Amino acid sequence: MIKVSVLYPNTEGSRFDMTYYLKKHIPMVQQKLGTALKGASVEQGLGGAQPGSPPAYVAMGHLLFDSVETFQKSFGPHAETIVADVSNYTNTQPTIQVSEVKL
Amino acid sequence: MIKVSVLYPNTEGSRFDMTYYLKKHIPMVQQKLGTALKGASVEQGLGGAQPGSPPAYVAMGHLLFDSVETFQKSFGPHAETIVADVSNYTNTQPTIQVSEVKL
Repeated sequence: MIKVSVLYPNTEGSRFDMTYYLKKHIPMVQQKLGTALKGASVEQGLGGAQPGSPPAYVAMGHLLFDSVETFQKSFGPHAETIVADVSNYTNTQPTIQVSEVKL
Repeated sequence: MIKVSVLYPNTEGSRFDMTYYLKKHIPMVQQKLGTALKGASVEQGLGGAQPGSPPAYVAMGHLLFDSVETFQKSFGPHAETIVADVSNYTNTQPTIQVSEVKL
């Protein structure tokens, strides 16, 4: 299983519309990717390790796939549509990472 | 539900012993935190958004708790022991973030 993590940095002036993300963006991604998408999770940053410190990321989204190949095959044809929607909920430049799920 | 994410950066010369992390560190954390810990997940970084690009994080660990309060109450008394074990599997300085689980 692999996880595609999209990490939205908590920079000065960063905007992130969690309602749009949860109600519009993620459902659209789920609909486009279909059964290739094995799971989705979303978190909103609260803080860092020190009490009162800001979170490194204002939000994180994670998508699960059986393999890198099924991710690429399912995401590729819809990449343009999905990426074009990002500016509707954030002005940040997300860090994207593909990981192997170990536990 | 809240998620505590520990993100280990993929810097030059970074060392991360995934076997130790999975077989020793995480089981020790699970044992210390007991029933306050509602779940744990671990990922190993494979790559970034561009084919062939390196992952931002060599590894990520995520711990689930009912609330920030139950995290602090369960983690606090064992923080020193848990943090002291980190140098056994990595030389990186992890980014730690507390997030609210939205999906």
